[in-house]
Amino acid sequence: MATWSKAASSSSLIILAIFLLSLAGVAHGRSSRRLVRSYDEPCMEMRLYLHDILYDYSNSTSNSTSAAATRPTALSTAAPSAPAGGTFFGQVVVFNDPVTEGRRALPPALEETEVRAQGLYFYNGKEAYNAWFAFSVVFNSTARRGTLNLMGADIIAEKTRDVSVVGGTGDFFMARGVATLRTDAVEGFTYFRLQMDIKLYECYV
Amino acid sequence: MATWSKAASSSSLIILAIFLLSLAGVAHGRSSRRLVRSYDEPCMEMRLYLHDILYDYSNSTSNSTSAAATRPTALSTAAPSAPAGGTFFGQVVVFNDPVTEGRRALPPALEETEVRAQGLYFYNGKEAYNAWFAFSVVFNSTARRGTLNLMGADIIAEKTRDVSVVGGTGDFFMARGVATLRTDAVEGFTYFRLQMDIKLYECYV
Amino acid sequence: MATWSKAASSSSLIILAIFLLSLAGVAHGRSSRRLVRSYDEPCMEMRLYLHDILYDYSNSTSNSTSAAATRPTALSTAAPSAPAGGTFFGQVVVFNDPVTEGRRALPPALEETEVRAQGLYFYNGKEAYNAWFAFSVVFNSTARRGTLNLMGADIIAEKTRDVSVVGGTGDFFMARGVATLRTDAVEGFTYFRLQMDIKLYECYV
Repeated sequence: MATWSKAASSSSLIILAIFLLSLAGVAHGRSSRRLVRSYDEPCMEMRLYLHDILYDYSNSTSNSTSAAATRPTALSTAAPSAPAGGTFFGQVVVFNDPVTEGRRALPPALEETEVRAQGLYFYNGKEAYNAWFAFSVVFNSTARRGTLNLMGADIIAEKTRDVSVVGGTGDFFMARGVATLRTDAVEGFTYFRLQMDIKLYECYV
Repeated sequence: MATWSKAASSSSLIILAIFLLSLAGVAHGRSSRRLVRSYDEPCMEMRLYLHDILYDYSNSTSNSTSAAATRPTALSTAAPSAPAGGTFFGQVVVFNDPVTEGRRALPPALEETEVRAQGLYFYNGKEAYNAWFAFSVVFNSTARRGTLNLMGADIIAEKTRDVSVVGGTGDFFMARGVATLRTDAVEGFTYFRLQMDIKLYECYV
Repeated sequence: MATWSKAASSSSLIILAIFLLSLAGVAHGRSSRRLVRSYDEPCMEMRLYLHDILYDYSNSTSNSTSAAATRPTALSTAAPSAPAGGTFFGQVVVFNDPVTEGRRALPPALEETEVRAQGLYFYNGKEAYNAWFAFSVVFNSTARRGTLNLMGADIIAEKTRDVSVVGGTGDFFMARGVATLRTDAVEGFTYFRLQMDIKLYECYV
């Protein structure tokens, strides 16, 4: 503790004062929003399911919730072992997907969900499926209003993969955390369901 | 306060020492950058206007500041009630837009702004306009240099909508916050002006 | 210190108690993950090189690591002084690029790197090259597993430019920081190498 004694001797009291002052300022603030950090246990946690129904294969505009904005590039069929249709390298998909709290059947019921995932993903694997996501989870119910913003690599070859929760708004003001993705169901090229275990480690309450 | 007494009795003094030591270290650091958090009032606040002039409708390369990188998909005209041109589901637009501090007239003056917004947005509503943004606000003036990075859903149906400020560089080093977007003007498909109320709640100064 | 005395007099002891309690709680936690913040010196630092080999000009599917998902728009050739091929305004490129710790020669060796950068960039300069990036650095070695997520403007006209590290997973759990990009090599339209100096200022260890 020698270093501590030396460094702190000159300034510890003043620093303690400044620290208490800043805390006191918050305590005396109007709405007194408070940061809850928990490094070991999430301050908020939820399991959600994202349902993606791709127009380009379902050919149903009424059911679809996503559409390919671009075509796969030559790199998607580069590998001799590529499946029919290749690995879709370079295909960008724009989505506005229903999100549910439990596993659920296919639409049309899905259209009416109070939670949606809005964003894009694209495939970027040459020899195997691989994807990358950037999206917002938009909550619009009486219980929760606001958004969570996520981005990260969806390394499909791994059973679960983590993406970052980089921000939030409304009830999720300034949130940060990690979301663990798991492919929960796949039906050809038409439908997939993604399980998202969202854990927030910074919450402002 | 029983819990506190019990939990802290064994380690409170040591912890206090460590805390003061870490603060003292920062105070003795070279540049002494300091984190200012303010949960109730922003540590920095600004109102900016983003001006987007879409080439695809203005047909003027000299004035335009954005261009559609992809076409709308079939989902954009899915709804019978869709307006002419649909809701543009799947259209991705790349932009490098002038940003001003006050409402301003149209170009050419806008070309020379010291603040610009660089990024992409896309439409992802089937039956009504809805968009999603990811972009950087790039400051390049004598007063402010650096960038703010934002992403989030632009739920056009709502009068104001919040997106996340997920990071910053330069004068906005490590910033976080929320930006409230409001459509301030629309001229057909050629021009829109977005009011952005940016509030930072984490600033490093 | 008048303000401090006044503000803190009523509540300083209680606040100090709450603070120590929260610290004690962390200290008594199971895995005791701890936030290390360092505003002046990074808590983690690395220099990496990203190698991008664009299919559209190399025409080699085996070597390429990226492909243009969209074509340049009319804005890319707007300026009379534009180089052949213009400034690529609106071209979106999807990549899955090898990342190395040292400068390295071209593939095929690059295919096997344990670190990769997965994401997209697009050009958005009318009269000069300018780009914007959003991507994940994916680490998959015995030494480091996890991802860092980055986004920001790549203002090519500047020698170095900063983008934000907005989140991380795995060994980079909840990380934040800044990455300084520098163009390290360019070979026509086929290959570029980007030096990335990544500095994290928030680490959870």
